[in-house]
Amino acid sequence: MAITEEPKHFVVFQPSGRRGHIEEGTWLLDAAHELGVELETICGKMRTCGKCKVRIEEGSFERYGIESSRAHLSKIIEKEREHLGAQLDDGYRLACAARVQGNVVVFVPEESRAVKQVVRKTATERVINVQPAIRKVYLELRPPTLQNPLGDWERVTDAMRRVFHLDHLGIDYRTLLELSQALRAGEWKVTLTLWMNREIVRVEPGLVERSIGLAVDVGTTTVAGYLCDLKTGEVITTEAMMNPQVSYGEDVMSRITYAMTHDDGLAKLNRAIIEGLNTIAKNATERVGLTPGEILEVVLVGNTAMHHLFTNIYPEHVGKAPFPPTLHHSIDVKARDMGLRVHSSANVHILPIEAGFVGADNVGVLIAEEPYNQDALELIIDIGTNGELIMGNRTKLISSSCATGPAFEGAHIKFGMRAAPGSIERVRIDLQTLEARFKVIGKELWNDELEPEQIGARGICGSGIIEVIAEMFRAGIIDKTGRFVKGLQHPRVRKGEDGDEYVLAWANETSIGKDMTVSIKDIRALQLAKAAMYAGAKLMMRRLGLKKLDRVILAGAFGSYIDRERSMLLGLFPDCELSNVYAVGNAAGDGARIALLNTDKREEANRYARQVEYVELTVEPAFEREFMYAMHLPHMRDAFPNVETWLDKEGCAASVRAALPKVLAA
Amino acid sequence: MAITEEPKHFVVFQPSGRRGHIEEGTWLLDAAHELGVELETICGKMRTCGKCKVRIEEGSFERYGIESSRAHLSKIIEKEREHLGAQLDDGYRLACAARVQGNVVVFVPEESRAVKQVVRKTATERVINVQPAIRKVYLELRPPTLQNPLGDWERVTDAMRRVFHLDHLGIDYRTLLELSQALRAGEWKVTLTLWMNREIVRVEPGLVERSIGLAVDVGTTTVAGYLCDLKTGEVITTEAMMNPQVSYGEDVMSRITYAMTHDDGLAKLNRAIIEGLNTIAKNATERVGLTPGEILEVVLVGNTAMHHLFTNIYPEHVGKAPFPPTLHHSIDVKARDMGLRVHSSANVHILPIEAGFVGADNVGVLIAEEPYNQDALELIIDIGTNGELIMGNRTKLISSSCATGPAFEGAHIKFGMRAAPGSIERVRIDLQTLEARFKVIGKELWNDELEPEQIGARGICGSGIIEVIAEMFRAGIIDKTGRFVKGLQHPRVRKGEDGDEYVLAWANETSIGKDMTVSIKDIRALQLAKAAMYAGAKLMMRRLGLKKLDRVILAGAFGSYIDRERSMLLGLFPDCELSNVYAVGNAAGDGARIALLNTDKREEANRYARQVEYVELTVEPAFEREFMYAMHLPHMRDAFPNVETWLDKEGCAASVRAALPKVLAA
Repeated sequence: MAITEEPKHFVVFQPSGRRGHIEEGTWLLDAAHELGVELETICGKMRTCGKCKVRIEEGSFERYGIESSRAHLSKIIEKEREHLGAQLDDGYRLACAARVQGNVVVFVPEESRAVKQVVRKTATERVINVQPAIRKVYLELRPPTLQNPLGDWERVTDAMRRVFHLDHLGIDYRTLLELSQALRAGEWKVTLTLWMNREIVRVEPGLVERSIGLAVDVGTTTVAGYLCDLKTGEVITTEAMMNPQVSYGEDVMSRITYAMTHDDGLAKLNRAIIEGLNTIAKNATERVGLTPGEILEVVLVGNTAMHHLFTNIYPEHVGKAPFPPTLHHSIDVKARDMGLRVHSSANVHILPIEAGFVGADNVGVLIAEEPYNQDALELIIDIGTNGELIMGNRTKLISSSCATGPAFEGAHIKFGMRAAPGSIERVRIDLQTLEARFKVIGKELWNDELEPEQIGARGICGSGIIEVIAEMFRAGIIDKTGRFVKGLQHPRVRKGEDGDEYVLAWANETSIGKDMTVSIKDIRALQLAKAAMYAGAKLMMRRLGLKKLDRVILAGAFGSYIDRERSMLLGLFPDCELSNVYAVGNAAGDGARIALLNTDKREEANRYARQVEYVELTVEPAFEREFMYAMHLPHMRDAFPNVETWLDKEGCAASVRAALPKVLAA
Repeated sequence: MAITEEPKHFVVFQPSGRRGHIEEGTWLLDAAHELGVELETICGKMRTCGKCKVRIEEGSFERYGIESSRAHLSKIIEKEREHLGAQLDDGYRLACAARVQGNVVVFVPEESRAVKQVVRKTATERVINVQPAIRKVYLELRPPTLQNPLGDWERVTDAMRRVFHLDHLGIDYRTLLELSQALRAGEWKVTLTLWMNREIVRVEPGLVERSIGLAVDVGTTTVAGYLCDLKTGEVITTEAMMNPQVSYGEDVMSRITYAMTHDDGLAKLNRAIIEGLNTIAKNATERVGLTPGEILEVVLVGNTAMHHLFTNIYPEHVGKAPFPPTLHHSIDVKARDMGLRVHSSANVHILPIEAGFVGADNVGVLIAEEPYNQDALELIIDIGTNGELIMGNRTKLISSSCATGPAFEGAHIKFGMRAAPGSIERVRIDLQTLEARFKVIGKELWNDELEPEQIGARGICGSGIIEVIAEMFRAGIIDKTGRFVKGLQHPRVRKGEDGDEYVLAWANETSIGKDMTVSIKDIRALQLAKAAMYAGAKLMMRRLGLKKLDRVILAGAFGSYIDRERSMLLGLFPDCELSNVYAVGNAAGDGARIALLNTDKREEANRYARQVEYVELTVEPAFEREFMYAMHLPHMRDAFPNVETWLDKEGCAASVRAALPKVLAA
């Protein structure tokens, strides 16, 4: 029996270079799919959306040894004229309307590529493929007749099977209620919003491309939301606010205690953060002329306590040894079940939890930084009200947490505030005169380049606090114990209500009308925070048998401006080559955004959340001793050769250089 | 390489007779599973529930040619003493605690069989296997420690995988919120309620066996609820009420119109029926000392309009040609999303829809009566406010519907009421004296065996209406056109406000203090209803090429007392052998209950809902003519040989016998 085979032609897609022999008569769109080139299309070959635009490269393609021509495709049809107009003359076609009839080389312009990419520009530039859980498809249906009175939903699922090869589709209850009206309002032309290719969560009349999502990092002190375009992957706008739960307790433990000791404690805490999230959704969308109802998916991260509180899970057990969370795995919950006022059928994806004190926010950092793909031995410090540490590389990763308190976020510091316009973020103290220069967020120039009344400092943010204390140490105003050097005579050094203090900004340079100072109490708060972090890192290094770190990544709410030299001078983390210290900003928030944009990263999150080994350091007997050593600036015993080199270059008070330990303690 | 094999023994399970060779050392419970005998167990071999009790048959078992003995099992352990006590002496063991060590014959008592059965006792007795969507399992977990601080949910899923071999489990959001507290309240011993073996919908401390569900048939006029024990399959109690939507319109079309012509029309109709369902859930559970929160699953049926209204789907399109429903397939919706106040994580299963006017109630009838498994050519008439007809057998089934109006439910009839204590359900008229005898629901005796003040008739229910009009016809009080025979002189026959009437009960026999009559207007309402039904059946027979029906099944709200002879005398359906006419009561409600008890029947419902071919009869030109013929009692042209035979035996006015058509019209 002879089988007649269709002739095949050589087809190449550029710029990917994917190529293969394709049967005559195949649609270019199917040829692309066959060769692993994903083209944009939302109408499924109905020739309505015009998204699958490609350009045919003419002439001889020596590289492939083939002759390629526009004539090697089927004739241009009317629909292409409508969508392409003058572009036809430049060789453009719709891939859904052209059949292969000879060798062709096809160029896929950026806009026609199905998988968009966004680049995360931090220390290590990373590309995120935009493959969100939300996908929109466009359908044209035949209306029901007496001969074919099939129900609306079955009419839709039949078409989805036929056109998009999607089977076993479900529909959210709320969307089902709107189905029949939407189909008729659109005269049987509708855009369906699919979630995870399995649940329809919206039906809109006509062709609607807009696709919006919200990623939120719920910090103990600060809540940061990112409104994202799910088609391009771009951040449309960001919106931050103080966590409204702060009025029930400043740190995690005091909120857990509140929930346990008040009958409606959990309900109050939950309502507070849910209303906060509703405010973020409302403000962010309104700013760009949208409504919260346009938000089709939400991704949330937060430490374990925040996770339990926004999910409305009783948090008692995560606050008591052995600190088991109610669950580790990521969950998808209907926004309406959580009381979130976004699109009524929207899902909320909550990232997984590693361990009791290493929560979904740390998982966000994990998938943003991907230490599990690195050879370099990294320490990632996520500094919030709680400090979370990840250490290791692709071979092994461990995590831990330490109670740093909110000093780095500006709380527990007299003039502390979060990074916002008006906050001092950079400080330099002259080694000779002990005068301070500083820069305020929102101003291009430093304070000494402005008239006093133009400065308007409102407070000091986390990076400003680190810089001012580091500079005070470097200039010899405070000593290695954090105390003010005795007998110092200077107008800026004085006794205040909290003890010794240094005037960073004079009243006329501020918008608050009084001298802005850094006191011995503020310095102590910073020392406590940094000592906890350092001791944690030290014990983790010991656990992994490391003498030295290849890289230190600083993530956290103080933004991307943290000064690596001054952080190390204060001993926030063990010595490391300075060029290998990076600040990456809010990596937890970035992780939330990444999970919103890419579902593979959600799987990655679940996989690595369980692989990272959590170590409970504070119960280790060595912790207290290490903590005490680390209270010193930068440390009582550990040498900081990289800091020494820097100080040698930049200069410092003689006492400082002498105070640095000379050997790396065992 | 020699493989050492464990010796095998011959094991027989009674009464099923399943047998096989089982490896030495196998638990009896596993042996049973291996041989396809499902034993009751909720603790998964933890020896906590004591459910897998079996009796070992001793002595020689000639039938199997083996010697069987209690000694052929491993030793009795302490846990068995606790659970079995004196039963040990009778040869009882726990199958989870005894290992096979020799040939044994095991008797499985009724209570230990996993699949309980309930029998539906109607025309054709049917056995329902109790395999509901809801299943309870009992778990004992190790509490978390610092060495193993695994999260609660992962602790549960690990155990479910290990003990019950259940994977990919989900948990409803509301149940997740209660997980950590329930685990601790039960000291890590909990009962989990599983839905469809895939979603955990409840966590209760300790061992809790109770498992309750609710099946409801939402009729246009009457709503009937069945509170069921999901372990035994028994109906615990029933609860009926008038559909609260009646105040917005008596029939389907007027309610659809209400929804379309009022801004909040759908919302009002939906709220009315949802509150009705909540009342049913509350009353039914309270009557038996429970709360609605104990209801773990709800199954709903109803015609297409009721389906859309209780689901909260805009019903406009099911009321307009070509009548496409919003969906056909069954759906599972969270009760809370529908506003139902039952267990907070409970699901509602809504049976599928066949076609625009043949709804989920008819699918209930389908799975209760299973015409698709019959050889006999059946006509199933489900009589409610709408009449739905199914005709055919395993080869082919067609369905249709006809607007009968609520006459059969007692509405549009002056003294009509639904079947309830005090309603007249049976009537006999003396052919000579034209005096009426009747029986009231709730009384053992007929009216002439009671003192007048003991009778207390409140109204006439559907079956009573059929009987009284049939008897009036048989006695020659009305003629074949339904009119009163002229010139009849009798105290019971008189002119009333609605025209000619017959006094069925004198005022002193009623609890309403006035004569209870049947008027020409009532008779006309019944004629219209029955003519629609008959014409539908006739056209369906023609469609299938049938001359005669093998069986007629009457389902519907008038209960199981419908009189087959008198129904046929009125011409409710075509002639058929009288012994093959059955009344099966509320088969739609039975179908809802069956779907609640057996998930296979849900699949069957979806399969057959789409296989039954819906025929729209009212648009056929022949319908009007057939309708007109069928207005006559019993019919203008069709012969009723079976009615003739019956009348010859039972007697009738001479005019009646003469009026019957003599040949079966083509």
